[in-house]
Amino acid sequence: MKAQRVELFVCPMATPADTSGLQALADSGKIKPDTLVALVGKTEGTGAHDDWGRVWADVVLREWTGKFLGIPPSEVAKQVIFVLSGGCPGVITPHIAAVTREWVEVPDKEVDAGREKRLVVGRAGSEPMPPEEVGRMGQIRKVAGATHQAMADAGLTDPEDVHLVMVKVPGLTTASIKDAESRGKTVVSHDLTFGPEGAGVYANDAAALGVAMALGEVPESSLSDSVVRRNWDLYSEVAMTSSGGEKRHGEVIGHAITRDFIDAEGVRNALRSAGLRFKDGLPDEADLSRLIHVFAKSVIPGSDQIRGQRITLLDDADAYQIGKALGGMLVASVTGRTTNYVSGGERNSHQGPPGGNIVAAVVRADG
Amino acid sequence: MKAQRVELFVCPMATPADTSGLQALADSGKIKPDTLVALVGKTEGTGAHDDWGRVWADVVLREWTGKFLGIPPSEVAKQVIFVLSGGCPGVITPHIAAVTREWVEVPDKEVDAGREKRLVVGRAGSEPMPPEEVGRMGQIRKVAGATHQAMADAGLTDPEDVHLVMVKVPGLTTASIKDAESRGKTVVSHDLTFGPEGAGVYANDAAALGVAMALGEVPESSLSDSVVRRNWDLYSEVAMTSSGGEKRHGEVIGHAITRDFIDAEGVRNALRSAGLRFKDGLPDEADLSRLIHVFAKSVIPGSDQIRGQRITLLDDADAYQIGKALGGMLVASVTGRTTNYVSGGERNSHQGPPGGNIVAAVVRADG
Amino acid sequence: MKAQRVELFVCPMATPADTSGLQALADSGKIKPDTLVALVGKTEGTGAHDDWGRVWADVVLREWTGKFLGIPPSEVAKQVIFVLSGGCPGVITPHIAAVTREWVEVPDKEVDAGREKRLVVGRAGSEPMPPEEVGRMGQIRKVAGATHQAMADAGLTDPEDVHLVMVKVPGLTTASIKDAESRGKTVVSHDLTFGPEGAGVYANDAAALGVAMALGEVPESSLSDSVVRRNWDLYSEVAMTSSGGEKRHGEVIGHAITRDFIDAEGVRNALRSAGLRFKDGLPDEADLSRLIHVFAKSVIPGSDQIRGQRITLLDDADAYQIGKALGGMLVASVTGRTTNYVSGGERNSHQGPPGGNIVAAVVRADG
Amino acid sequence: MKAQRVELFVCPMATPADTSGLQALADSGKIKPDTLVALVGKTEGTGAHDDWGRVWADVVLREWTGKFLGIPPSEVAKQVIFVLSGGCPGVITPHIAAVTREWVEVPDKEVDAGREKRLVVGRAGSEPMPPEEVGRMGQIRKVAGATHQAMADAGLTDPEDVHLVMVKVPGLTTASIKDAESRGKTVVSHDLTFGPEGAGVYANDAAALGVAMALGEVPESSLSDSVVRRNWDLYSEVAMTSSGGEKRHGEVIGHAITRDFIDAEGVRNALRSAGLRFKDGLPDEADLSRLIHVFAKSVIPGSDQIRGQRITLLDDADAYQIGKALGGMLVASVTGRTTNYVSGGERNSHQGPPGGNIVAAVVRADG
Repeated sequence: MKAQRVELFVCPMATPADTSGLQALADSGKIKPDTLVALVGKTEGTGAHDDWGRVWADVVLREWTGKFLGIPPSEVAKQVIFVLSGGCPGVITPHIAAVTREWVEVPDKEVDAGREKRLVVGRAGSEPMPPEEVGRMGQIRKVAGATHQAMADAGLTDPEDVHLVMVKVPGLTTASIKDAESRGKTVVSHDLTFGPEGAGVYANDAAALGVAMALGEVPESSLSDSVVRRNWDLYSEVAMTSSGGEKRHGEVIGHAITRDFIDAEGVRNALRSAGLRFKDGLPDEADLSRLIHVFAKSVIPGSDQIRGQRITLLDDADAYQIGKALGGMLVASVTGRTTNYVSGGERNSHQGPPGGNIVAAVVRADG
Repeated sequence: MKAQRVELFVCPMATPADTSGLQALADSGKIKPDTLVALVGKTEGTGAHDDWGRVWADVVLREWTGKFLGIPPSEVAKQVIFVLSGGCPGVITPHIAAVTREWVEVPDKEVDAGREKRLVVGRAGSEPMPPEEVGRMGQIRKVAGATHQAMADAGLTDPEDVHLVMVKVPGLTTASIKDAESRGKTVVSHDLTFGPEGAGVYANDAAALGVAMALGEVPESSLSDSVVRRNWDLYSEVAMTSSGGEKRHGEVIGHAITRDFIDAEGVRNALRSAGLRFKDGLPDEADLSRLIHVFAKSVIPGSDQIRGQRITLLDDADAYQIGKALGGMLVASVTGRTTNYVSGGERNSHQGPPGGNIVAAVVRADG
Repeated sequence: MKAQRVELFVCPMATPADTSGLQALADSGKIKPDTLVALVGKTEGTGAHDDWGRVWADVVLREWTGKFLGIPPSEVAKQVIFVLSGGCPGVITPHIAAVTREWVEVPDKEVDAGREKRLVVGRAGSEPMPPEEVGRMGQIRKVAGATHQAMADAGLTDPEDVHLVMVKVPGLTTASIKDAESRGKTVVSHDLTFGPEGAGVYANDAAALGVAMALGEVPESSLSDSVVRRNWDLYSEVAMTSSGGEKRHGEVIGHAITRDFIDAEGVRNALRSAGLRFKDGLPDEADLSRLIHVFAKSVIPGSDQIRGQRITLLDDADAYQIGKALGGMLVASVTGRTTNYVSGGERNSHQGPPGGNIVAAVVRADG
Repeated sequence: MKAQRVELFVCPMATPADTSGLQALADSGKIKPDTLVALVGKTEGTGAHDDWGRVWADVVLREWTGKFLGIPPSEVAKQVIFVLSGGCPGVITPHIAAVTREWVEVPDKEVDAGREKRLVVGRAGSEPMPPEEVGRMGQIRKVAGATHQAMADAGLTDPEDVHLVMVKVPGLTTASIKDAESRGKTVVSHDLTFGPEGAGVYANDAAALGVAMALGEVPESSLSDSVVRRNWDLYSEVAMTSSGGEKRHGEVIGHAITRDFIDAEGVRNALRSAGLRFKDGLPDEADLSRLIHVFAKSVIPGSDQIRGQRITLLDDADAYQIGKALGGMLVASVTGRTTNYVSGGERNSHQGPPGGNIVAAVVRADG
């Protein structure tokens, strides 16, 4: 019987245009044109919607991948999923992770024997989303549909086996707002930032609710336009979403949530759930080499209180940067390394419970 | 025989002008006009040199203290030490801590018996420092002198018993620079910020070297104008310094240093050294109630590498805020609370070893 | 017959708590407890909703005024209007302007003779506005009502005689949002900033439409919740509004609008309409001494084009500060002085035409 | 006799990688491989030392130019001068200006007849500058030498004929500081920003003094390491300098200085000196079509006073961006267009007199 063999390689980047790590992987045969399924990374720059560091990285990585695959850059998206998250404030090392997938023959009895579950990956694109659907039920339903497709692609049927859904959905732009309004439609927001009423967070959160709907975390009957960014009791524990490009999916094993913004134990739990052992708050050194990668959100809590004490983060002029940076510190202080995928900075989200955040870890199986 | 009994009370502040916590302490008799020796706190605002949140808090707290002591606000500084550190980005709760000191009679044999050491406090003012001495040997020597006085005031003779020296020294202002230059003197910097060549960090670092000299951490022979902010091998492990006002001192027991910027274990070690017990990376819940307060620096490392990986913090436009916020997260994620005194954001310092930071904890003795 | 004599005195402030200029006016008898009707000023600080510079100034100015009037600070608002606009980025000098009004006897024939119109001032408070009305028709109608009252108080019946309506309305806060939602109401926004979907700009713009409705600039029939911050063809040419406190009014003579963001000629036109003469683009020096004060908005255009060329201001991370600062430069470069009242930084507004801004000047009559 | 014919074409850029304007110029034959001598422009992005918008533009423009010239990108610098200035806050349109130079035969008598002077361009590279020379006499002397070469290349002998010297010099980087210190040398600053003690401004100002020395604006005998950024009486009226790459020169006709930061009349004088006529403060419309381009600095004054009134610009957290933006407004409000080359934001400079700034205009000769 055929089974997936998925691998993930993390390459630090010295500049937004640094493809040397990928090239080394290609040269060594670790990634091949027919096994590369996704590039997921953090790029340095402002993290804002006009972050030229991210845009430049995107252009250069697509060019490199096009050459590697022997196809034009414009065709790359059909074969390889790109998730680039801009902004590395604080202790987040700019990096790109290459995800590969191969189908290998395994003895049937081994599969039957209920062996320990391993990392599998699925991906899918969604139907086009017009600007008037962004941040609303239209977007929620299309993301839910694509999540089902991605599960099928991954060979998964039980939502419990889904530990991370990374989704990239279109947000709004000056041009797409103008388009919608010229057709007599309204849009969810005129704010292009990731502020609390920004189009970016509405898109992210509709996508998260789409994943939650697909996985049964939230019943479809409780969903409507008016719950998006209003009813925080509805959320996904596995959706990590960002907006800006086309919609894409990938799933990775091993996750947990933090219960509030300073919950280092939540991070340790994610690592434990993926099989890592801890000693005195730090991962066992021998074990640490088995930790491949950590994916974490760092959404700013909507409340100005943490464990009963007031904080002023909501009022910080640069709360978006600081909120993202703090998530990077929380993860780095537990894993002892800085090459973590941490996105965030928005205020409140349907990604994770109110005040808490999602953490997912990829750990190599023992022995 | 007389011995000190020192207590420390932490009051969250709802605004920069909130004195209700202090008033409650006064009403309950926990602080008295003749026992109050210091007010140490974090105020909300920008944290910059023209942070009006800090200035307003300073004005209001001096007025309150003047009334409490029955003296004019301008006389308050002679009796009570003020250390207000501006800026609470991220997860640092604005608060003021009142420090009290009483002299109580203890049986001589108890003292002789080498009982566990307890918290003692000393304070001292220094000679005036003209602007041309700021950030240079003149300031280093005067801080060293005052540190000796403060030790005497605390009844300490062994530098090993000194765990925290908080120093507030004058920095430079537009007016004081003009004054120095009109007298034909030069000043160490024309940059009034806390940037890498800013007058604020030169003053902080000269003060730190002054403490290091007084405590024998750095031999006087290795000190000169040209080592300040150049030779990072010279540092104090117990000096927490800030600039802006008059020079003052206070000492508190229990400290450690972090070995790098993401070293949560270093924070745990500080708490352990003050007598706290940990279980699985978090303080034992029963023990946590004994943790009175944590004082920590969060100086940004001068290198763009942490444990071998590049970070971009040095290039962040808002590195000063982010650097301070990250220290707040590192401490809060270990202690599980946000009312910590964390100052920092400057790049490199003689406060703590290269890349690492100072953490001091006040813990109530067992039983 | 009785007529108003209105005067306006501009005092630069050395700190947010500097009342020395007002005290000098009081000492010289230029302002008296029964003539002082308004304090209007720009305070230094961040200009954000938690700008402690503005808050401190407000506290100190109310205390000073209370003493001056011989009433408690909490009663001051009933007698003197406060309009404090936070943030002086760039070339805006922090200052407070005291407005006085006296009723003087003038010969009836002089009034009949249609003499040149002079500065008059009216003021009014409005009914309370619950949070669910902020940025919506409820607020629009209440501001319109108060504008009518203020006109009556000023003795004006013709809307053409109204050149400036300064309005301060309540915005939203974390607490007031919670209050509204606990009563089953919705609010216009959860964003507390002055971003494009921020509660602050919704409040400002509802107030501007309220003025426009009262003065017949916009017919009531074209107004509804859904036009606020959507239909930019509806606007007032005389409303300068800000949010944060209670609603108040004042009117001053002489105004014009700029046709776009770089239109210095529009500024000159405002000064010309108030009677100032220009020579080669600069005010005649003899004339300049007659210029008492300038009030200007500096709203960022909603378009990314000025006169056919793209600008990136909409994408600037600090567009709010820069947008305000640019208005300060536009006015200062024309008047040759920096003590101008310039508020702004928000994106798009019903204050002034699309892309343009309001400028009003107070000029002493010739001879 | 041979004479230069110099032309300058301004192309707005839609993104940092937009070469469509240059391509159109190439397609129409307006620029040719053997006439293109310089590309000078403003790129969108943060304007900081790690501004990825500028870096990306630089890479793309060199690639484009390499293809246009038929040489590798690495060879482009030998033939075409690049001056890219990052950051377009406010009303500065991102653009690239192509400068071409041809040698044409003119009748000798025409030259002799002392015809109106026309635009000429010269360029030169300098000797390598090691990091220890940055911001010091070494850099000053090498820039002076290159200025002499550029004058010779332009065919100029009288310094009075030099109206603009654009210089790009190397600044300091983490790597070059390490290099210098490993060889036992010191560097002028460890601050990599454009703050008041930043390496960037020391390099800019040493370059400005180098130009001043070459043109006789400042006698060599008054120059030394210690006057750089200390003695503001020494300055050039024609040097526009920036740091980050190699040293290069270009000269353009027609300049003036502003006497202070809000001096619109100074901008008008620059345009007048280049032959433009004004009416009521604005350029005559017919004349405006003759205005090819404006180059201006916008250095923040070192004083906190403008015409006797205090401003808080020196304390603004984002003074660097605001200072640059304000210069853009000052020029745009006079020229009525936004495609101006305006660099600045640093505090104090030897480029222009204390408080004032340099403005140079290129205007097509009449008829």
